[in-house]
Amino acid sequence: MNETGRVEAFSDGVFAIATTLLILDIHVPAGSGHELTAALAHQSPSYVAYVVSFLVIGVMWVNHHALFGLLAKVDRTLVFLNLLLLMVVAALPWPTALLAAHLQNTGDAKVAGVVYSGVMVAHALLYCTIWWYVTRDGHLFRPTIDTRAARATRTRFNVGALAYPATMALALLSPWAMLAVHALLAVYYAFNQLTIPGGEPTATPD
Amino acid sequence: MNETGRVEAFSDGVFAIATTLLILDIHVPAGSGHELTAALAHQSPSYVAYVVSFLVIGVMWVNHHALFGLLAKVDRTLVFLNLLLLMVVAALPWPTALLAAHLQNTGDAKVAGVVYSGVMVAHALLYCTIWWYVTRDGHLFRPTIDTRAARATRTRFNVGALAYPATMALALLSPWAMLAVHALLAVYYAFNQLTIPGGEPTATPD
Amino acid sequence: MNETGRVEAFSDGVFAIATTLLILDIHVPAGSGHELTAALAHQSPSYVAYVVSFLVIGVMWVNHHALFGLLAKVDRTLVFLNLLLLMVVAALPWPTALLAAHLQNTGDAKVAGVVYSGVMVAHALLYCTIWWYVTRDGHLFRPTIDTRAARATRTRFNVGALAYPATMALALLSPWAMLAVHALLAVYYAFNQLTIPGGEPTATPD
Amino acid sequence: MNETGRVEAFSDGVFAIATTLLILDIHVPAGSGHELTAALAHQSPSYVAYVVSFLVIGVMWVNHHALFGLLAKVDRTLVFLNLLLLMVVAALPWPTALLAAHLQNTGDAKVAGVVYSGVMVAHALLYCTIWWYVTRDGHLFRPTIDTRAARATRTRFNVGALAYPATMALALLSPWAMLAVHALLAVYYAFNQLTIPGGEPTATPD
Repeated sequence: MNETGRVEAFSDGVFAIATTLLILDIHVPAGSGHELTAALAHQSPSYVAYVVSFLVIGVMWVNHHALFGLLAKVDRTLVFLNLLLLMVVAALPWPTALLAAHLQNTGDAKVAGVVYSGVMVAHALLYCTIWWYVTRDGHLFRPTIDTRAARATRTRFNVGALAYPATMALALLSPWAMLAVHALLAVYYAFNQLTIPGGEPTATPD
Repeated sequence: MNETGRVEAFSDGVFAIATTLLILDIHVPAGSGHELTAALAHQSPSYVAYVVSFLVIGVMWVNHHALFGLLAKVDRTLVFLNLLLLMVVAALPWPTALLAAHLQNTGDAKVAGVVYSGVMVAHALLYCTIWWYVTRDGHLFRPTIDTRAARATRTRFNVGALAYPATMALALLSPWAMLAVHALLAVYYAFNQLTIPGGEPTATPD
Repeated sequence: MNETGRVEAFSDGVFAIATTLLILDIHVPAGSGHELTAALAHQSPSYVAYVVSFLVIGVMWVNHHALFGLLAKVDRTLVFLNLLLLMVVAALPWPTALLAAHLQNTGDAKVAGVVYSGVMVAHALLYCTIWWYVTRDGHLFRPTIDTRAARATRTRFNVGALAYPATMALALLSPWAMLAVHALLAVYYAFNQLTIPGGEPTATPD
Repeated sequence: MNETGRVEAFSDGVFAIATTLLILDIHVPAGSGHELTAALAHQSPSYVAYVVSFLVIGVMWVNHHALFGLLAKVDRTLVFLNLLLLMVVAALPWPTALLAAHLQNTGDAKVAGVVYSGVMVAHALLYCTIWWYVTRDGHLFRPTIDTRAARATRTRFNVGALAYPATMALALLSPWAMLAVHALLAVYYAFNQLTIPGGEPTATPD
């Protein structure tokens, strides 16, 4: 496996584990009969937070994957920037659990919502930094990639990233709306991606 | 690694982690001497739930693996559907722990059993959706696959999937019987698979 | 990636996660100053159990790896047997935590020790079953493997496996001695392996 | 996948899981409104410990990766030494949680800091042992590697490793300073690596 492949494999591991650990923060309620049904219903913020965070991390993975698919090699700086990105990805079960625990109580939910959105902002900033770094002179790109065209996407890229700080403000108004926006952003980014000339993945029948 | 390979690797990670996290929900009992033996015996529903859920997720992985083995490439829609499927797979330690905690008490066990079977229904629905999507026009299949023959399996596929909603009803009668049926379904699906002409995996000596 | 490769990758995931989850059962003691030092010292059975179980699972992985290195392909039966083996591997953090929690108290430690050794017996039985299955007619072996020579190892293989039930009896005499024997067995199996003519792994500069 | 590849894949798994488990030791505080904000601020040692340990494990992974990139094959001794190294890597969430829990209280923080640094010393010792083993006669190196040049790095390697025991002494003076030094060492080792003639990784466009 080449260098790029192993960085991708390590990153895949962190993404896969972070999504799967999300479930550990949903506790098994005690109580019996009707109480159990009520306790399960009371946990609904946890289910919503699980679904949103799973989608968000999943789509982060899809986009991480697309970005690394453009690269022929990696260098020390990129490996280090990627490590910082993974640090934020791996942290996501914590703000998810924080938000789920406090979403029912208006005052707390705002604090938890700002923290949750703040972690998403940190992810967006690091992702933009990596994109800025690899498009600067395209020294890591596969030979078929049009570096000029890749660099031209920077503006659109950064505009999209501005949505994330806006969700911090939204968290102060309505943490539920903030969560809905993160879900919508995930679905949006799942289906809308910048296409870079020459960057089409090679589909091989194995 | 091509696109399909990386989606498989990420999925493998989620399957492997979800199975391995199941053990975290079996707690270490306190007490000493004869009390410890009794406490361990009292945990038997946890052991049964662990075995059944491990088999179920394991067989889900085997079948996921077989399905992706038919594909030459993936597209955005399939990646997104697969993400939804993995969201359900990754959630399985929670209904497993819920069922284990409440299996001894008749009233609660029914509630927990319906939730457990409900998560299995969600999995079956998503799996059928993916199968429906890839057999629709076979645009992602390896060139050797007979798309018409693959599409012809849809009916048999959906009939099998009807067993899952039936387990929800069974949970109301007997949660233990429901669990036994899930174990039998897992063993059944481990050994009986639809064979698609041209879809034999290529065994290479590496 | 071929079939064998993906079964190995999934198995590697379960082995890696099971070893890494072991640490979650060592808790952070409260208390301050000298109390903290004493509390840390009091946890020593947990450290010993961690080291032994990590070695045991690590060496299980090494041998699993060696066995699968002999195979050109897998079939449904092997995939299912391997799933049962992984079910036992993934369970190991639980008997490890059980033993660590009860090792200081003579009466309990015997119960916990029998459970711990019992799980190891289950692993040894499944591993022998897999070896028996693949050497029966060698239908899954790489073409270079001498099936007759592989089958001839069965006796030596089974004799080695008898050590595991003996550790269950030893646990009743001295759980600490039982743990020491498991550590020794792990080191022994790490350095002594059956060599099968034609089964040398291919070392490639990639 | 060849032998080296599978040892790397297993190691990658352990590194990825160990980093991702770090977040499980940051708990979700209770309390509401201003209390929640205060509780979150009170957790700051946990955040700092998370960041430092994530960087440390991440950089350990980068260097592990670079070392294995020099190898064409592995032998039993290396697999066993690597297993001991991974045992220390997988243990890191525990000293991290220990340090985070006790960093606010001067007396305890020293005890926790010595344990934290002690685990790092164990890692450095094992890493040096592996380097000493593979450079002894270079029997595992890829053919392009200059074994003599690789062996000549041993002194510089060991000098660097002396920094780790020094951090144990520093922990007695100031656990916070000790933590800062570990962060600096991680950043230093991320960007400064011994380059071995002939050991450049092969960058292939897939």
